[in-house]
Order: sequence, then structure tokens, then C-alpha cells
Amino acid sequence: MTLLPTYQDVVDAAARLEGHAHRTPVLRSSTADTRWGAEFFFKCENFQRMGAFKFRGAFNALSKFDAAQKKAGAIAFSSGNHAQAVALSARILGMPAVIVMPRDAPAAKLAATREYGAEVIPYDRFTEDREAVTKKIAAERGMTLIPPYDHPDVIAGQGTAARELFEETGPLDALFVCLGGGGLTSGSALSARALSPQAKVYGVEPEAGNDGQQSLRAGHIVHIDTPKTIADGAQTQHLGDYTFGIIRRDVDDILTVSDAQLVDAMRFFAERMKMVVEPTGCLAFAAACAMAESGGLKGQRVGVIVSGGNVDLARYAALLAG
Amino acid sequence: MTLLPTYQDVVDAAARLEGHAHRTPVLRSSTADTRWGAEFFFKCENFQRMGAFKFRGAFNALSKFDAAQKKAGAIAFSSGNHAQAVALSARILGMPAVIVMPRDAPAAKLAATREYGAEVIPYDRFTEDREAVTKKIAAERGMTLIPPYDHPDVIAGQGTAARELFEETGPLDALFVCLGGGGLTSGSALSARALSPQAKVYGVEPEAGNDGQQSLRAGHIVHIDTPKTIADGAQTQHLGDYTFGIIRRDVDDILTVSDAQLVDAMRFFAERMKMVVEPTGCLAFAAACAMAESGGLKGQRVGVIVSGGNVDLARYAALLAG
Repeated sequence: MTLLPTYQDVVDAAARLEGHAHRTPVLRSSTADTRWGAEFFFKCENFQRMGAFKFRGAFNALSKFDAAQKKAGAIAFSSGNHAQAVALSARILGMPAVIVMPRDAPAAKLAATREYGAEVIPYDRFTEDREAVTKKIAAERGMTLIPPYDHPDVIAGQGTAARELFEETGPLDALFVCLGGGGLTSGSALSARALSPQAKVYGVEPEAGNDGQQSLRAGHIVHIDTPKTIADGAQTQHLGDYTFGIIRRDVDDILTVSDAQLVDAMRFFAERMKMVVEPTGCLAFAAACAMAESGGLKGQRVGVIVSGGNVDLARYAALLAG
Repeated sequence: MTLLPTYQDVVDAAARLEGHAHRTPVLRSSTADTRWGAEFFFKCENFQRMGAFKFRGAFNALSKFDAAQKKAGAIAFSSGNHAQAVALSARILGMPAVIVMPRDAPAAKLAATREYGAEVIPYDRFTEDREAVTKKIAAERGMTLIPPYDHPDVIAGQGTAARELFEETGPLDALFVCLGGGGLTSGSALSARALSPQAKVYGVEPEAGNDGQQSLRAGHIVHIDTPKTIADGAQTQHLGDYTFGIIRRDVDDILTVSDAQLVDAMRFFAERMKMVVEPTGCLAFAAACAMAESGGLKGQRVGVIVSGGNVDLARYAALLAG
């Protein structure tokens, strides 16, 4: 049996992140409060370093390396926020980092990862298996692989965002969190159970990729094909052993939203809250809007984790313009 | 001689705003800091209520009304942020508000102002004089006219944003503020002189509408035609007696930037800081970028007031897309 991380691990992670991660603001929206007769608290991880909560988990994991691990450095495979999170954390902690990325990843993402000082090793996603490529390099160089979500230190790090939220708001009635591989959702659930035990905790997935919802209902991890959705950070095919173990115990339900709902939420964030939020970062609020719209949050105090803001500007402009 | 408001008026305004205005976050950008070798502190008034600093001045002015004034209410002419600021402040304080707006103002702005509970009185900007229209209604109804910038209580209210910034950062080397009619610039200068006397204070105008710069150099208020610029909040034709009196005494220089520089700054805010900022709100940072680019801010601690985020989404998307 897998030994799951605990809330104490979140507390320890918070101490490691002190002075390195931003304590992101909790913003309010009187428009949302008035429209739905509830109180919304938005924990804005789009203002986190490198633009997403992923910095928390990566930094926590890397800062636990021993001297030998630190000398050899960290390796990760990702074309998204985890790549930049590991790259930036490694730079801050003074260790080498290798990121294995698809050769045809957007040039901007390759450049951003290199800008943070990481070595980018490209692979051909049509002929090569990225895990095999990564493990080979890790073995050759003695580097430590940091997976994007299914790792106790990553989960504990991600949990610090919800912890900061509850420290600021006190107990809440509900907490909405986006769900991809489950790192943020499971970490948030650890904090919720400790600091706001009565809160309903909801993970939110794209409709097209509801593997988490299926897993929760089936009682085991369900694998799906890579889903087609604008929420590129939630295109995961399955939960992990650690994340599912926490989610099945501590999460009340897993909800889904459509891409159209994500765009509506993105427009609300831009127009009413003056924030740029990436599609994946809109999942939690889109589900909260749907529940509020049907009267399900009346009079409640509702936490929403806004997970990130990394979206290509041309794509963002196109989504806003509709 | 006009009796100018003082820093004590800013302190008194802050007490009135307590619990009504948001204490907006001061955000950082390690990208900006690294790129230019300086420390930037962004006071984000785009996250203020109704999306701009204007709420501060309007609320301060209205909250000083006596019983008779309160009963009759407030009147303003504006098609921009001042309209919504007066409307929202009046609603909070439980008094009537009339906003005189051009009949052909964007439907969204008319709707937003009505949504805040104000009565909108349209006028024809080709055949009618808005000041005359406004004064007539004010006289008929006994309402108190709140001008958008040239009023001691408005100036004192706007000064509370810079005060909060300095409270958080301590003294700075430079402060950049957007300049239209001068309410925010003069209020900010009062706070700067009290809390950071050595800071250089810069007002920033659109290149096309540099009446403030001309006025500072001429030593008297210069009037210009309505300038063509995307910074619609800074299309003022002249400073006011109060604002010019403070600016000539307390502001070090007035700088100008082009519309292209505003768009660059807007893109930086969206891409790097995940914030929606309206064109006028980009003035201060655009000028700071230009000065930093030429090495003029090396090693300095620099305050930038981000004044607002109210921009029509379709227009915003078009500007981002370039």
C-alpha cells in the first residue's frame, strides 16, 4: 500500500517555499457575489512565479534533494507548466535540470524553458516514448525524475495554495479545484480536511476528459485516450496512485464542464476581475458558476483556485474575441 | 489663490475609504526586474472596485456630503470610469446619482452605469454642451456636481493608492503615474512627498495629448484639442487649477509615450503578469520601460501605478492580437 502524504507534509512544504513562492492574493468579485448570492474567494495562482501553482510542487520536491541528487540535478518530461516549474526551481536551488519535450512543442514554450536555464532535450512524439527517453537520460546522468503530479512532495507543495487560502478566509462551505493528474486537487483536499473539515471539496475536469470522475465512481483508476479540450493542462489520461488515494478519501465529488463554459469563465475573469487565466485555470470557476446558477451555492462561502495564467497571447485573444 | 489639498487630506480620505475600497495588491515581476536590473512594484488599481482608481476619489468626495447634499445626491458628466465610480459610490452611500453621458456612448458603458443604480441622462454631443446640460440638472434638482479630477476631495481620494503603495514598500527612488486631468498624479505626488520625499515623481501622458507636459514647461495651464490616442482615459484637454498647482510643485517631470508603447506594455502585463490593463493604465509602465531600457533606472526601486482595467473585451482582444 502506498503511504499517502499528509497535511503535515503540506505544512513542511510551506516552510520550504517561504521566501521563494509568492503568497498570491485572494481576490473578490462583488459582481459574482451579487449575481449568485454567495461569497467567492479566488486564490490567484496565475500570479504565482512562472504563472502557475506548479512552482509550489516542483520547488518543494527539488528542495528535499540530498547533496548527491542536487549535484546530478532534476529531470522531467512535460510540455506545459511543470517543465517551467522544474526549470525555475532548479535554477533557484542551483542545480542542473533537463526537460524532455516534444520536438514540435511551441517555440515559445521551448524558449521559455531554456530561459529558466534548463537543458531541453527534444524527442519525436510519433516514434519515441517520452518516459523511455527520460528514464534513459536519468539513468545515464544519475538525475532524479520529478513526475508532474504523482509524487508525495509534489502533492504536498501544491497543497500550500489552499492552505494559504484557508489561512486568509477561515473555514469555507465549498472549494473548487481544477483536476488533471490530481496533484492540485489532492494537495488542496489535504489542506481542506485539516483547516475546513466541513467544506465540500470538488475536483473539476473537462467534459471530454472525465477519467477522474469515472475513477471515483468505479473505485479504481480509469485510463482514457488523450481528451480533446482547450484545457491543455487537464489532458491527462489517468490519475496517479497517490493522487487517487487522497481524492477517493477526501474529495466529495468530481464535476465536469464544457469548453464553452471555460470560455465564459475566461471572459468573466478578463472583463470583471481583470485577470488573464489559462483555459485549465478556468475549470474550477466554470463549475462553481454552474452550481451557483442552479442555486446550489446560495448563502455559501466558496473558495475557487485559479490555477494558472500561461496561455499564448494570440490564442488568448482569439478565445476572448469568440 | 486656490487652497490646495494636503497629505493630511489623503490620510483623512484613507480613513473614509477603509472597508469600502479594496486595498489592492502590489505585484512584482521577476521578468521586469531581471531584464532591467531594477526592482518594480506595481500598485494594481485594475483590481479596485469598478476596475479603476477612480472609485477612491468619488467615494471620498461623496462621503463628505452633508445631510441635504446626500438627500439630493450627486451628479457627474463622464463616459468613462468616473461615471461608474460616482454611480457605485452613491449606491453604497445610499444617495441618488445622475450621470450625464453622450447619447452615442457604448451601450455597455451606459448599461454598466445603470447597473450601478445611477440615472443616466443622455445628451447630444454634437448639438449640446455637456457642462451646461449638467449644471441645469444640478440646479433643478439641487444635486452636487463632482468633477472627474479638479476637486480637492477627488485628488485626496486618488492619493490613497500611492499611500498604500509606500506603506507596503517604504521609500522608492521613482514613481510613475498616468496623467489625464491630473487627479491621480497630483494625489500620488502628495503621498510621495510625505512618505518618500526623495522619489522622482513622473506623470505620463500619451504623446498625442501632452498638454500636461506643455503646461509644466510653460508654467501655466495649456489647452489642447481632444487628442487621438488609444488611452481614452487621458484624452483630457487641460489640467485643472488644483491638479496643476500640485503638479508644478511636486512632480519632477511629465513624460510621454506612443500608442505602440502602450500596446507593448499591455502585452507585457497580459503575458508576464496575467493582468488585464486598459490602455490608459499602461501609460506609467510604458514610460518606465523606456527609461529602464536606456539604463536610467538601474539599481533603483521603482513604483508603477496601474490605474485601471476597464477595456471592452473585443477591443482588448484586437489590441493583444496586434
